[in-house]
Amino acid sequence: MNFKEELQKYQELINDELSKYIRRDKCPEEVLNNSMEYSLMAGGKRLRPILVVAVYQLFKEDIEKCMPYAVAIEMVHNFSLIHDDLPGIDNDDFRHGKPTNHKKFNEATAILAGDGLLNNAYIVISDDLEKSKSDELLKKIKVFKEFAKAIDRMIAGEYIDTEFEGKKISEEYLEYIHKNKTGALLKLCVRMGAILADAPQEDLNRLTSYAEKIGLAFQIKDDILSEEGDEKILGKPVGNDKLLEKCTYVSKYGLEGAKEILEKVTKEAIEELSRYDEKAEFLIELAKYIKERNK
Amino acid sequence: MNFKEELQKYQELINDELSKYIRRDKCPEEVLNNSMEYSLMAGGKRLRPILVVAVYQLFKEDIEKCMPYAVAIEMVHNFSLIHDDLPGIDNDDFRHGKPTNHKKFNEATAILAGDGLLNNAYIVISDDLEKSKSDELLKKIKVFKEFAKAIDRMIAGEYIDTEFEGKKISEEYLEYIHKNKTGALLKLCVRMGAILADAPQEDLNRLTSYAEKIGLAFQIKDDILSEEGDEKILGKPVGNDKLLEKCTYVSKYGLEGAKEILEKVTKEAIEELSRYDEKAEFLIELAKYIKERNK
Repeated sequence: MNFKEELQKYQELINDELSKYIRRDKCPEEVLNNSMEYSLMAGGKRLRPILVVAVYQLFKEDIEKCMPYAVAIEMVHNFSLIHDDLPGIDNDDFRHGKPTNHKKFNEATAILAGDGLLNNAYIVISDDLEKSKSDELLKKIKVFKEFAKAIDRMIAGEYIDTEFEGKKISEEYLEYIHKNKTGALLKLCVRMGAILADAPQEDLNRLTSYAEKIGLAFQIKDDILSEEGDEKILGKPVGNDKLLEKCTYVSKYGLEGAKEILEKVTKEAIEELSRYDEKAEFLIELAKYIKERNK
Repeated sequence: MNFKEELQKYQELINDELSKYIRRDKCPEEVLNNSMEYSLMAGGKRLRPILVVAVYQLFKEDIEKCMPYAVAIEMVHNFSLIHDDLPGIDNDDFRHGKPTNHKKFNEATAILAGDGLLNNAYIVISDDLEKSKSDELLKKIKVFKEFAKAIDRMIAGEYIDTEFEGKKISEEYLEYIHKNKTGALLKLCVRMGAILADAPQEDLNRLTSYAEKIGLAFQIKDDILSEEGDEKILGKPVGNDKLLEKCTYVSKYGLEGAKEILEKVTKEAIEELSRYDEKAEFLIELAKYIKERNK
């Protein structure tokens, strides 16, 4: 399998699907819609929706059934980026190498674009529930509830991250932040894919563990990149974490210590997939990609 | 009927119900939870949840069935107040006579508290869906979808309001703003009460018209109060709209013109309820109250 080709195919699939949800009609709130589109289509990695689809494919082939949830989670991810970048929170000027939403538009628009994307995710879910057959409603309502609860955890994680900026932090708190801020959403993606595909409980447990481990790996790698990444490739300034005295795995365990933990959790994540056949190859390569990516 | 006593009873009912949803556990995000509670329990009029319950009671008595939706809509209302008050939008220091969320806490907390309240509303709805009997799911999913779409309209209305601040505005746009910013949510409340109580389509139409008219009356009265209200009673500065050159019914039609329209739409709203017996008395008095309130 050529992982980069597969990844690109998935990214195109997601981008095509997202573009169906863009509102292009002339209306008084046109600029607000443009600002939501600007962030949504700014060129993220689409890791979250890809996880939904790739896990779904471990069990079933009719991926159109999980696409609304893939779209919804990418909307939520972009809502969180827009709000995190705001002057009142991280005050970032660039994201994916482009001006952040409030820099491209203005602060009021960015606040409301974030609100709009979060809420749009629920429009997408309510639309899908309305169209669903009655025998699918139970699992979809379970997914809806897990969705809302994971976002709650993400917001809590972001809050604590903000509160502890520039303060000494315990190992326990550092883990709590990452588990909530990044981990909850990645875990949700994997679980949504599995639940929607009617995966047995045993598989759901195993995949949940995979998700927790790649979530941790993702955050550690993010911290490493923020310390020693290439500004041009990352599309955002490097060294800001140190400047803002942010609590990260690098500030806590040092660069080498963080890299060791990253190796260990990636290996453990891959082990969770050992019982699956070549169907899991993409998810295995994805775990390696999270560890090795340079942006 | 003593309207003020009835109103107070409803307010106590809603406050009791809301307090069940307050998170008081010790956790790292405790201050964020406190900030959500601060705004949610700051003493609003509870007009929106009361509308849900009072309309439900036109048809049925088991009001516990509509309470989750009453709670959810009040959470959404408070999310919108917190974000509208932010320095990046209206930059207001006081709300209900108390410091706004970002003044009491800080900007980052206020942004995330707003996000959290919006998202919490969906946790409440997903919880209720999970607990519902299968024969109730169809109408509840319809309510969930109307809920998400009304919030989308509210955000669009707020955006246009922001965009046109200090600019000349056409009558058409003024109506579009209010229809979306305030009207959509009030209409939703009335429709949720009716749909959840299995009201026939004819009643749903009539009540929707009532809702549209009190929504318009509410906005006109707000504009009038912003011009000539009592700062101490309102708990917020008066005359700010003029200062900011905001587009309002008063700036468009003058104080007397706005009052005439207010009389007319209130009368029309009450006429929509003429077919109901004394059960509609509270909703009739509510329409008068919206017109006559001093805060």
